[in-house]
Amino acid sequence: MKRITFLLVAVGTLSVVAFTASRQADEEAATPIFGIKIPHGYRDWRLVSVAHEEGNLNDLRAILGNDLAIKAYREGKLPFPDGTIIARIAWSYVPSEENNKVFGRAQSFVPGPAPDWYLQFMVKDSKKYATTGGWGFAQFNKDGKPADEAMHKTCFPCHEPAKARDLVFTRYAR
Amino acid sequence: MKRITFLLVAVGTLSVVAFTASRQADEEAATPIFGIKIPHGYRDWRLVSVAHEEGNLNDLRAILGNDLAIKAYREGKLPFPDGTIIARIAWSYVPSEENNKVFGRAQSFVPGPAPDWYLQFMVKDSKKYATTGGWGFAQFNKDGKPADEAMHKTCFPCHEPAKARDLVFTRYAR
Repeated sequence: MKRITFLLVAVGTLSVVAFTASRQADEEAATPIFGIKIPHGYRDWRLVSVAHEEGNLNDLRAILGNDLAIKAYREGKLPFPDGTIIARIAWSYVPSEENNKVFGRAQSFVPGPAPDWYLQFMVKDSKKYATTGGWGFAQFNKDGKPADEAMHKTCFPCHEPAKARDLVFTRYAR
Repeated sequence: MKRITFLLVAVGTLSVVAFTASRQADEEAATPIFGIKIPHGYRDWRLVSVAHEEGNLNDLRAILGNDLAIKAYREGKLPFPDGTIIARIAWSYVPSEENNKVFGRAQSFVPGPAPDWYLQFMVKDSKKYATTGGWGFAQFNKDGKPADEAMHKTCFPCHEPAKARDLVFTRYAR
């Protein structure tokens, strides 16, 4: 009887531990200022464009959009409607040795490890984010940890020069 | 009566002209050797990865995959199953003056006009393409015109070094 009680307690404890661990994984952190969490399924979104940033960033990036974003982009409609989300994934810019062997020269650059600015999102909500042009801004590292408040304060002023295109720099790549 | 006959003939002729024009637009050309047409809806496919090729190519590229491709990539399963299609879109590599103004330095590169090698596809059909590792290869320019036979003869030998990964160079960007 004692053994059974022990087993029941052990199983119960393990269940609680497992439940807590899965809860923690589900609880995604929200960004300061804008309160944005990583949108589910963003990696399945359609492609808006690609880019390479040199300098301190030195990354290769893909810009994806949810259905509202892609529709607005393709129709050339501005401003983007509420509910639009644009995702930007950045990877460090690294040479591909296996590709270069085939080309016979060092010319091929591909995504490497994730930099601290791995993920960014722009979320359109013209009421909620009225003071920042209708957009909320978010940045996360590879582990899903949001960047700090100071960093998030730089988003809107940096995007303001693109006011004529509703604060969005990236054009749709045709 | 003559006027009505004339109008009917005119309308009829215009309809035939319009019908023929739309037929021609629908009739997409197939590539030499592999007989591949541009797959419908490929621009909606999900992202596999991005890349930059320097040298003579000097392009920015996005690699997309149909559902079978994405599933196989994510599960790390090789060889890719029949029905897999991998798309590669290339744009010329141009500086973005509007982005550079914001960054305060020349560092931002974005997609420019389409080069001659705008679109490429790898289509898996282990029976149909048994002599080329189970893959059919295709290249089209921006107008949907396939590259010539000589060009298509270079695809398979160039991809052979990637035999260990079922002839596919591009890795999935996580």
